[in-house]
Amino acid sequence: MAQKPNLHLNIFVANAGHHEAAWRYPRTQPERLGELSYYQEIARTAERGKFDSFFLGDRLALGNVRYRAEGRFDPMMLLAALTTCTERIGLVATQSTTYTEPYNLARQFASLDHLTGGRAGWNIVTSWDANAAGNFGMVQLISHAERYARAAEYLDVVMKLWDSWQDDATVIDREAGVYVDTTRVHRIDHHGAAFDVNGPFNIPRMPQGRPLLVQAGSSDDGRAFAATYAEAIFTAQQDLGEAQAFYNDIKTRATALGRDASRISILPGLCPIIGSTEAEAKAIEQELNDLTIPELGLLTLSQRFNGVDLSGFSLDEPVPLHALPRPKEIEGAKSRAQLTFDLIEREPGLTLRNLLRRFAAAAGHRVVAGTPEQVADHMIDWVERGAADGFNIMPAELPGGLTDVVDYVVPILQQRGVFRHEYTGTTLREHYGLDRPESRYT
Amino acid sequence: MAQKPNLHLNIFVANAGHHEAAWRYPRTQPERLGELSYYQEIARTAERGKFDSFFLGDRLALGNVRYRAEGRFDPMMLLAALTTCTERIGLVATQSTTYTEPYNLARQFASLDHLTGGRAGWNIVTSWDANAAGNFGMVQLISHAERYARAAEYLDVVMKLWDSWQDDATVIDREAGVYVDTTRVHRIDHHGAAFDVNGPFNIPRMPQGRPLLVQAGSSDDGRAFAATYAEAIFTAQQDLGEAQAFYNDIKTRATALGRDASRISILPGLCPIIGSTEAEAKAIEQELNDLTIPELGLLTLSQRFNGVDLSGFSLDEPVPLHALPRPKEIEGAKSRAQLTFDLIEREPGLTLRNLLRRFAAAAGHRVVAGTPEQVADHMIDWVERGAADGFNIMPAELPGGLTDVVDYVVPILQQRGVFRHEYTGTTLREHYGLDRPESRYT
Repeated sequence: MAQKPNLHLNIFVANAGHHEAAWRYPRTQPERLGELSYYQEIARTAERGKFDSFFLGDRLALGNVRYRAEGRFDPMMLLAALTTCTERIGLVATQSTTYTEPYNLARQFASLDHLTGGRAGWNIVTSWDANAAGNFGMVQLISHAERYARAAEYLDVVMKLWDSWQDDATVIDREAGVYVDTTRVHRIDHHGAAFDVNGPFNIPRMPQGRPLLVQAGSSDDGRAFAATYAEAIFTAQQDLGEAQAFYNDIKTRATALGRDASRISILPGLCPIIGSTEAEAKAIEQELNDLTIPELGLLTLSQRFNGVDLSGFSLDEPVPLHALPRPKEIEGAKSRAQLTFDLIEREPGLTLRNLLRRFAAAAGHRVVAGTPEQVADHMIDWVERGAADGFNIMPAELPGGLTDVVDYVVPILQQRGVFRHEYTGTTLREHYGLDRPESRYT
Repeated sequence: MAQKPNLHLNIFVANAGHHEAAWRYPRTQPERLGELSYYQEIARTAERGKFDSFFLGDRLALGNVRYRAEGRFDPMMLLAALTTCTERIGLVATQSTTYTEPYNLARQFASLDHLTGGRAGWNIVTSWDANAAGNFGMVQLISHAERYARAAEYLDVVMKLWDSWQDDATVIDREAGVYVDTTRVHRIDHHGAAFDVNGPFNIPRMPQGRPLLVQAGSSDDGRAFAATYAEAIFTAQQDLGEAQAFYNDIKTRATALGRDASRISILPGLCPIIGSTEAEAKAIEQELNDLTIPELGLLTLSQRFNGVDLSGFSLDEPVPLHALPRPKEIEGAKSRAQLTFDLIEREPGLTLRNLLRRFAAAAGHRVVAGTPEQVADHMIDWVERGAADGFNIMPAELPGGLTDVVDYVVPILQQRGVFRHEYTGTTLREHYGLDRPESRYT
């Protein structure tokens, strides 16, 4: 197994960048969101920077595209198309356990892992979005708890399918006329509350055994799920103390479940805005914020809180906390609503306009605008203080924001001995310091 | 629009070739079925031969892998991975309307079409296989008629989704802060017997407007479906007269539905086995047939006829027709059962062993073993006599069987003026002489 590097980096690729106004910023190329070459360029840059992984989010409905750029290719298809332009970087896609069939999804990830020689990862989401439900015949959104129960059974099914073929099942004995030793291929005969799947799987065991399992839910259900299954965790953390508490909570839960907590990488989102001086970086941040469209921020905030009407409130008055539903009343993304609440409570007097701007940069993820040294210092500080094992890099604008990280921040991290100079493994699991699991049927 | 060439060629890529014993034949490379490079090599060869399209079948369950090679990557993932190694050839994948969600599938094809610059095609199947049903929680197989009713509604939904964005919806006006003119993006609000899908779609309209629609069912339900929707039709036809009757039936049905029948390409399956002399070709055919495993043929035949027990019958006696269920009693692939029946009735005295061999080469598709001239003559004859608009080429063994067609048969077709020397269009629809449809919302 590869030696575990000190710090892991994932590039979260979205649109013209994570700032909601990135597409209006002169350096970006929103015209290219529909072109494969755009994603090829970003993937190659991240690989040049020795990033562990390249990650695509997803949403099964149309976003607020009047005011923001969105590229919504099916992430599995886009990652498959990137197979041949990259060699080592992991390829991670978001896929929902609510709106897909486990046999289909298991095949897609197994295919991607074979095609890439062991570089597939799955960001498991339970999909909370009412608009998505309306595209899948679900008149009523199923509850938060039901989604997680289904997700746990879904994981159980796909893991059995991925184990279904022992590693040595394919024998290809031309003389004897035996292609597969079918005694080494197993039915799974899963019969549960949500799924009935007989198997066997129809693809040989994948190079990694199973894809890297990634998770991003931070609610109580989400944390329990992550502690049980996740090998890398994306999380939104604004504040060092809260990040440390989250980090400890996940590692403690995982240890209690008998897992080796050191094998779980917690990667808070980080939106770096880099300038040659801090003043220059702050000016870029300001320029981006000045390009935001308040209508978009209000729409997004309203959607986060069960569609509450915010149109009557002044942008330049303190946020009307009393007008928002409590996070526990949210059936959607509870953790993002909680994050918003925490921010308002931590900064009394925060105006609605400034709250919207705070979320404009990276939807509530931590922004660090500064010099390459300042960004590197922040990263090393959070790792050393037990708040992170690495970062989910969410550049404010793409592709330039990533190029800045690769050209200016990565060399500092390498020089300080906390990040790899070269890939030491060939698979995504190896990049994250993980073993290849044995099939349960071996 | 590109000028319509006289004859269309599709390469149907499966395993080590379409002969069930191909993997035991010395020239094949069954060890490479799990490697992307194998499919890249085949796709590039077909593109060198100016083939219209590269096609992958699919099955949502494990086949008889003890006795035959199977590569069962998810076909959408494999085609996406082939995007960058090809430039002009169309990429067609089988996908089921029974075991997928229309919103997901519509996105996958739209993504593939964008990524390839307009080269996506969909072979629409309704999936009849009981083993597949067991992988999707369906205890009872839904009936043949129900599957086709669902398929028709499914088509209606995905076509609406593909039309959902007008071609000029994306405006990217940085100054005004308008990315998409959302008045040109439409909800579909489909509410039918099988599906409720609100939309809008979340991907801009694809280069081709919609993928090439391909269909392969030849039962009465299948023909009605094909005449309504299909733009290319794959069909198994052993006999010129029956092929002509099928051809006329489809074109007549399509005309009656108000379609331009000349825009529908009917492509009978053709398994060419090529030698420098006819005797050499026949010897190769014999060599392949000698490698067949009778257990596999019996299993396949039994599965085609509702699992009937054939173990008590002698391989060297005439086929026990009375022991087989009538094709109308079949809820699976009716048309393949009918083809088997027709063959037995046409050749009284055909032994079980010889019937199995007849299906061994290409599962009941027409085999032509001969010189390149003989294969070309056969193709031109069928086209001139109104039995075909081209062929679904199913080489007995791959990749060599395709290379033979490209190197020896294609030049003859070109010389005789019935096949393109160069691609004249850039999209798959153009290869098949089809217009780009307008969005219904324009």
